Amino acid sequence: MDIERLRFLLENVKSGHTTIDDALKDLKNLPYEDLGFARIDHHRALRNGYPEVVFCQGKTEEQVRIIMEKLVAHNRTVLATRATPRMYQEVSKSIPGARYHELGRIIEFGAGVTPKKGTILVISAGTADLPVAEEAAITGNAWGHFVEKLYDVGVAGIHRLLDKQQLLNTARVIIVVAGMEGALASVVAGLVDKPVIGVPTSVGYGASFLGLAPLLTMLNSCAAGIGVVNIDNGFGAAALASAIIRSEETES
Amino acid sequence: MDIERLRFLLENVKSGHTTIDDALKDLKNLPYEDLGFARIDHHRALRNGYPEVVFCQGKTEEQVRIIMEKLVAHNRTVLATRATPRMYQEVSKSIPGARYHELGRIIEFGAGVTPKKGTILVISAGTADLPVAEEAAITGNAWGHFVEKLYDVGVAGIHRLLDKQQLLNTARVIIVVAGMEGALASVVAGLVDKPVIGVPTSVGYGASFLGLAPLLTMLNSCAAGIGVVNIDNGFGAAALASAIIRSEETES
Amino acid sequence: MDIERLRFLLENVKSGHTTIDDALKDLKNLPYEDLGFARIDHHRALRNGYPEVVFCQGKTEEQVRIIMEKLVAHNRTVLATRATPRMYQEVSKSIPGARYHELGRIIEFGAGVTPKKGTILVISAGTADLPVAEEAAITGNAWGHFVEKLYDVGVAGIHRLLDKQQLLNTARVIIVVAGMEGALASVVAGLVDKPVIGVPTSVGYGASFLGLAPLLTMLNSCAAGIGVVNIDNGFGAAALASAIIRSEETES
Amino acid sequence: MDIERLRFLLENVKSGHTTIDDALKDLKNLPYEDLGFARIDHHRALRNGYPEVVFCQGKTEEQVRIIMEKLVAHNRTVLATRATPRMYQEVSKSIPGARYHELGRIIEFGAGVTPKKGTILVISAGTADLPVAEEAAITGNAWGHFVEKLYDVGVAGIHRLLDKQQLLNTARVIIVVAGMEGALASVVAGLVDKPVIGVPTSVGYGASFLGLAPLLTMLNSCAAGIGVVNIDNGFGAAALASAIIRSEETES
Amino acid sequence: MDIERLRFLLENVKSGHTTIDDALKDLKNLPYEDLGFARIDHHRALRNGYPEVVFCQGKTEEQVRIIMEKLVAHNRTVLATRATPRMYQEVSKSIPGARYHELGRIIEFGAGVTPKKGTILVISAGTADLPVAEEAAITGNAWGHFVEKLYDVGVAGIHRLLDKQQLLNTARVIIVVAGMEGALASVVAGLVDKPVIGVPTSVGYGASFLGLAPLLTMLNSCAAGIGVVNIDNGFGAAALASAIIRSEETES
Amino acid sequence: MDIERLRFLLENVKSGHTTIDDALKDLKNLPYEDLGFARIDHHRALRNGYPEVVFCQGKTEEQVRIIMEKLVAHNRTVLATRATPRMYQEVSKSIPGARYHELGRIIEFGAGVTPKKGTILVISAGTADLPVAEEAAITGNAWGHFVEKLYDVGVAGIHRLLDKQQLLNTARVIIVVAGMEGALASVVAGLVDKPVIGVPTSVGYGASFLGLAPLLTMLNSCAAGIGVVNIDNGFGAAALASAIIRSEETES
Amino acid sequence: MDIERLRFLLENVKSGHTTIDDALKDLKNLPYEDLGFARIDHHRALRNGYPEVVFCQGKTEEQVRIIMEKLVAHNRTVLATRATPRMYQEVSKSIPGARYHELGRIIEFGAGVTPKKGTILVISAGTADLPVAEEAAITGNAWGHFVEKLYDVGVAGIHRLLDKQQLLNTARVIIVVAGMEGALASVVAGLVDKPVIGVPTSVGYGASFLGLAPLLTMLNSCAAGIGVVNIDNGFGAAALASAIIRSEETES
Amino acid sequence: MDIERLRFLLENVKSGHTTIDDALKDLKNLPYEDLGFARIDHHRALRNGYPEVVFCQGKTEEQVRIIMEKLVAHNRTVLATRATPRMYQEVSKSIPGARYHELGRIIEFGAGVTPKKGTILVISAGTADLPVAEEAAITGNAWGHFVEKLYDVGVAGIHRLLDKQQLLNTARVIIVVAGMEGALASVVAGLVDKPVIGVPTSVGYGASFLGLAPLLTMLNSCAAGIGVVNIDNGFGAAALASAIIRSEETES
Repeated sequence: MDIERLRFLLENVKSGHTTIDDALKDLKNLPYEDLGFARIDHHRALRNGYPEVVFCQGKTEEQVRIIMEKLVAHNRTVLATRATPRMYQEVSKSIPGARYHELGRIIEFGAGVTPKKGTILVISAGTADLPVAEEAAITGNAWGHFVEKLYDVGVAGIHRLLDKQQLLNTARVIIVVAGMEGALASVVAGLVDKPVIGVPTSVGYGASFLGLAPLLTMLNSCAAGIGVVNIDNGFGAAALASAIIRSEETES
Repeated sequence: MDIERLRFLLENVKSGHTTIDDALKDLKNLPYEDLGFARIDHHRALRNGYPEVVFCQGKTEEQVRIIMEKLVAHNRTVLATRATPRMYQEVSKSIPGARYHELGRIIEFGAGVTPKKGTILVISAGTADLPVAEEAAITGNAWGHFVEKLYDVGVAGIHRLLDKQQLLNTARVIIVVAGMEGALASVVAGLVDKPVIGVPTSVGYGASFLGLAPLLTMLNSCAAGIGVVNIDNGFGAAALASAIIRSEETES
Repeated sequence: MDIERLRFLLENVKSGHTTIDDALKDLKNLPYEDLGFARIDHHRALRNGYPEVVFCQGKTEEQVRIIMEKLVAHNRTVLATRATPRMYQEVSKSIPGARYHELGRIIEFGAGVTPKKGTILVISAGTADLPVAEEAAITGNAWGHFVEKLYDVGVAGIHRLLDKQQLLNTARVIIVVAGMEGALASVVAGLVDKPVIGVPTSVGYGASFLGLAPLLTMLNSCAAGIGVVNIDNGFGAAALASAIIRSEETES
Repeated sequence: MDIERLRFLLENVKSGHTTIDDALKDLKNLPYEDLGFARIDHHRALRNGYPEVVFCQGKTEEQVRIIMEKLVAHNRTVLATRATPRMYQEVSKSIPGARYHELGRIIEFGAGVTPKKGTILVISAGTADLPVAEEAAITGNAWGHFVEKLYDVGVAGIHRLLDKQQLLNTARVIIVVAGMEGALASVVAGLVDKPVIGVPTSVGYGASFLGLAPLLTMLNSCAAGIGVVNIDNGFGAAALASAIIRSEETES
Repeated sequence: MDIERLRFLLENVKSGHTTIDDALKDLKNLPYEDLGFARIDHHRALRNGYPEVVFCQGKTEEQVRIIMEKLVAHNRTVLATRATPRMYQEVSKSIPGARYHELGRIIEFGAGVTPKKGTILVISAGTADLPVAEEAAITGNAWGHFVEKLYDVGVAGIHRLLDKQQLLNTARVIIVVAGMEGALASVVAGLVDKPVIGVPTSVGYGASFLGLAPLLTMLNSCAAGIGVVNIDNGFGAAALASAIIRSEETES
Repeated sequence: MDIERLRFLLENVKSGHTTIDDALKDLKNLPYEDLGFARIDHHRALRNGYPEVVFCQGKTEEQVRIIMEKLVAHNRTVLATRATPRMYQEVSKSIPGARYHELGRIIEFGAGVTPKKGTILVISAGTADLPVAEEAAITGNAWGHFVEKLYDVGVAGIHRLLDKQQLLNTARVIIVVAGMEGALASVVAGLVDKPVIGVPTSVGYGASFLGLAPLLTMLNSCAAGIGVVNIDNGFGAAALASAIIRSEETES
Repeated sequence: MDIERLRFLLENVKSGHTTIDDALKDLKNLPYEDLGFARIDHHRALRNGYPEVVFCQGKTEEQVRIIMEKLVAHNRTVLATRATPRMYQEVSKSIPGARYHELGRIIEFGAGVTPKKGTILVISAGTADLPVAEEAAITGNAWGHFVEKLYDVGVAGIHRLLDKQQLLNTARVIIVVAGMEGALASVVAGLVDKPVIGVPTSVGYGASFLGLAPLLTMLNSCAAGIGVVNIDNGFGAAALASAIIRSEETES
Repeated sequence: MDIERLRFLLENVKSGHTTIDDALKDLKNLPYEDLGFARIDHHRALRNGYPEVVFCQGKTEEQVRIIMEKLVAHNRTVLATRATPRMYQEVSKSIPGARYHELGRIIEFGAGVTPKKGTILVISAGTADLPVAEEAAITGNAWGHFVEKLYDVGVAGIHRLLDKQQLLNTARVIIVVAGMEGALASVVAGLVDKPVIGVPTSVGYGASFLGLAPLLTMLNSCAAGIGVVNIDNGFGAAALASAIIRSEETES
């Protein structure tokens, strides 16, 4: 239930088209009760202003489709992250407008938040980090931000980064996606004076211990100004970046 | 090596003033040499605008004093974090204007950045988390931000948090400092739609494993929009918060 | 060996019917031998009164069927946990009365303990936690307790929990099933004054480390009154809940 | 916000006394504001009925004294756990009625909850586990329960346990405190059909890894009906035991 | 090359049927050179007196067959541990006398060491531990020892163990195979005064962490006299048991 | 209570010097009841045949003295391991016959078990491993075995080991004490065909992680026939070695 | 772009066949810009002098083929490590000259660096370590070094190693590849006085924890002169060995 | 046992001077006995040519003095690492020529190896890493190498590194000492084509976990050519660097 629908309800109360008792019934159950958890998210969406998101990992293809059907009915934009191609096939049966971002493993419905505002720069260290980087990029875009990408920038190629000083300068927030030793986040944070979000990835082998190595690297960074999210959590990084950009509206 | 110097080199090759072998040697090391990177750093220093900070842990009292003397000579504001009372005694011998924040373990010199801008809300879970919370609060203040505090808000007392909805609403960034199980960061992030910085602390015992428990809790939070810093790293949280607030100037 | 048998032995020594060496041999092994311990076990079986349970994980389909056949012959109710659909197919060949709870992965035979007594409230954090939550719910029901469910209550939707104050109030024991960061157990324990059983789940990814994160969270909870069971151990939680409810009969 | 206030708001919208925009603002923050949550807490305070507890670890002697002074003014019974002898000296300056349990490291003020109800049996494995066992025993007693103790029962001396079958039978809840390998909890849970609370301790060395070994042992117990609390958390075990005993009043 | 073949060589030297140079050639290259690593094992077999063993895990079916063919040519008994049924099919193509122990996952060729000597008692905690227990039992038998088995003796069924006091008394060495919490090794070591070999298994889930839990349990046992081998290492336990039994021949 | 005292009691019953009721009283309470845990150990001593041992770590000096006084009254030999010099001073006040092994940190009372039987060879890798090695050596000697020592044999000095082939050959059991990487146990087990007991030590730094490194090394040894005890557990190694040597009496 | 092509460009500038502006354009973008990441590697190849390498793990067969096609166009030698047989089939479609080393999992194109220089000795502990050892050996050979192999040298067969003293003596660098307990690296480093590179492998089971055990063993080696690379990183070991051999040219 | 001795043995068998049984006994222990291994060691000592080193950690002041006295009697240069000032005081009583490097915690006796050869560059990340860096520098110097230092080069100040291109170019080996996140080693290895030795340090706090973070970072470096030594092991890094420099003499 977005803000427009709520305003519409109140206007109907005022005009008498809706009785107070009917409105009460709607409002009382509004945040969570009736239709199950979908409504909770309505409430959250109302306050948060960003599109609904389904985390698909561990769900069946049917579950993903059913949840998306419900959400699509009440939201302009819906994302489903960690979605497999087969999940998309299932979803597209009943939601023809859904699109699939294969590399980023995201099913997207709707046009995203507009107008766009603020630039998120997504930097990734290696080819294998791309799925996580794309998850961040697509999410950031759908939530109403400009997204720039700087991919395949290993620590061994720092000069590539430096040449993009312009990009580094114009971004509001920088997301650094890196597996293996994850040193890239420290290097980037040493070059700029803006919020850097580190996303360690499970890319690597042996003593990377499924992403523990880059996670610890980013947490221990000697460069200040890095906030770290969970291993492989491209979505979370974009959510934080979006919150950072929108936070300036707070001030009055 | 800027484009002019490169052109000059090639012209010398063409004219024969430089042998091909000498030019080859120059070009082989091309991307990193001379002034290129120093400029970046200079640039960073200019833009950063925040006070110098000394991390005292693992240094002797004399080392802290000597370093502070040098910094005080060229900076309006200097902070020394993780400083013991004896370090402060040593420092105050030669820097009479230095003040000591005992709870936050910070020696502060100078007036801090002015005018102030943007509000950081620092929330802490328990009494034992206060040194870390204060480290964040003092740093945020010295770096030119308004700081509000909401201390001793355990998960068992969520209503305290909710009662402060006004505070939650006006802050630009929220820092949540919590040890033991660290659940507070998730709860706060579930209530607001703004950037939350989680600072796990080593407060606790047994299976807290020196802060590992709240660190994992915050990284795995089901609420989006949390960036995590190192265990006990109050300073780092304030640095990230400051970068977030200042980032809006970036945009043009 | 009870006191009468001991006296008899000594009398035989005195009278010479038993040699000292034979008596020594008997006495050396005194505390553990004869019927002592068997009796305990018998006693335990009598008092336990709960249905037999088979843990299917790591067993073949045939093994599960054979074990269930034996148990069904001597028990009114038998549960088989962590059972796959194919295990159920195999079991239903020879035990037509067996039912399968697909979500909770349990094969159930018999009517369960009656009359029912005491209410167990099972709360779960996310959709992916449902198999574990159902394992707890079905077990609790089969063992003779009323079971209420409150599913999909993330930390971000605490208000849902609060609206169910009535449910929270009437339950004797509350089981909280949560993966990712597992903060829900702390929040629930902060709201009630009754035993809370925390079941961390392996739901999550990255730094959840297969359930380590919610496990540590629950163990370090700042709210008192939480007992934690193994990761994904819905059955164990129900067993503990059942023991808690039945424990009041102990008192005399 | 109760239903009456919501109706009142809508009537004001209808009558025009409240603009739609003002109503919208109110409704947006609906679930958390006013008195709702405070009431819960009040409610909890009323129902809890157990004495206030101060966790002293990490606090200064003065802090402990000041906190206790405040609590003593409004509570009949106050406990301070993990208290050092010097903390007690400080506290006894201004609270002459305070007593110190040296082994259990608890400062106790007041007579405890009366009348007593329900028996907690505290079993410990070794001499070095006594401080944790005593912390549990003293807390259980102060909170209004009978406490029986069975100390120094290693796995190598199981027969001692069996001889106390009477004790095992009359207890409502059994707390098992064990370090090193922590196997005692499994053995006890195998002998009884009542709730067992496992408290791993940091007693041991080498591969005990500060209590990790007994913690894992207890969590993986093949005997059902064990709830585990944090390493060395004797207080938490008693709190859970108390909640279990009091839970039977819930039922109506 | 067993001791008989070596004696035969020396007798031929003595009698002149083999020249010293030919014998030298044989002996000089004896320990490792010629045929590759197979010969090393010959040498080891000579000194160690036990049959050759192939560890199949990580090898292809063909590799297992080829290695066994070589070993069978020079040894009376050969074992292949961690062998799959398909490895056995491959091996039996060229070694018709090979037998397969499916539960213990061992291919055995030859009659084993005779005459038998000394009794190894293999105790296991649960059904799922049987493959490891059988690996130990078959190996112990093939290496020339009597093997008694006591399977499915959980900590919850200690009386079964106690009832078998006779078995416990006659064994020279006891191997305890246990997963989950692994407490059984402590219990057994508390009942007897003879060497106990603990074999933690990866049986379990969640906080068993693939066998870490029982491994730590056994290492921290409060009962003296336990030696621990690697997780799931039934073979290693039998090898140690065999060395213990044979060690008495050392003395003179 | 050793076997002689038990025989004496029975003879008195037979001869009539002790009434059956008096004997009953003695025997009934024998294993554990009356005087606390000291009696349990009497019983254990009876069945196990080895001297009493006190583990001093975590006990006060007074506690050690009191426990030793009780044990000395009923035992020919008593050991106190992990004893500090100050504990010895306290003990020697009331037990003048006690001796202190400073390097091995053991207080010894009595002559030890005689006659001696079987040789234990204790090998240590470095100087810093000596306290653990000596703990093993002194215990083995006190429990009635010959002890040979081969100290400071690092992996870099394997030839020292090989030169002692005679020593390796005559020992019944070999205890290898090694910190840092702990490879010595593998090397020794590769040279002999007898039971090897590995004792990882906490000697080392950095990635030794307090003994985890040598612990894992020994558990994963590619040489068969190694049983591992807890980190720094020299006593446990000697206890296992003693059980191995005594186990041969079992057979009949 | 190798050194020859760069020299050619400069000669064209000198001779006037290329204008300075055209050369500038080439050179300015040289290290990274235009064709994507392939050029970075050109630059690196130029400075490093070794062939291009593709790390195939986590890439699709098509991705591997496309990357190799680009690299083959500009390099004399290209290696693709961690390549599956199906990747090779795909690659060989368009690069007929590519060869596949099945055991070492490497696709190799080109003749390798010549002339050869310096000997790398690759020692491996067990058969299962061969893929990693071969990865090192093939890489070392392709990068222009002589490679000697000494495979299947377990700690139990140290004499094999000693017999190869000649090999040990002539090598410039020794790479030791070992899983399980990894003690071989210590033993080798104890025998020689030259750089030893330890490669722990994930070969093993149970407490090897996917290679953690040999990793810690090698890091804690009591023998000086060992540098350790990541678990299973045969390529990295060869790269380090190659850098060591080439480093002597540095000196002037 | 060399070939002559073996021939002699066989001749004695042939002639009857040695019985077959005696010959068998000799041959059974063949590969390891007499002079073979001692020679290796002798050989190693001769070739090593580097000063004796005492690792002082865990030794008493007296032990250090006694060991140094012995070594000083037979060696031109002796180092004692991890030495405290009080150890130095003790040592200087009897060895007046000993010098103490306070920052590097090394006692040095003698002039070191001369003439010097090959340059080791020691780079450190932060002030707190200096003790480890100095340990490496002093050792490298004493062992006969030129040592250059580049201290306090954090990842945030990469330009400092780049400005020292000349230093990077002339060094034979580079040792990088870094705590916290340890990213410096990756950055350095990305800039040069020569062996880099990474020394993680325990400098840091929280999620650095005593050096685990930089250790994992360095092991997972995406830049090839890094060998890692134990946490804080400056000495080991210098030993490896020295072996690398001296290795070129090997070739003939």
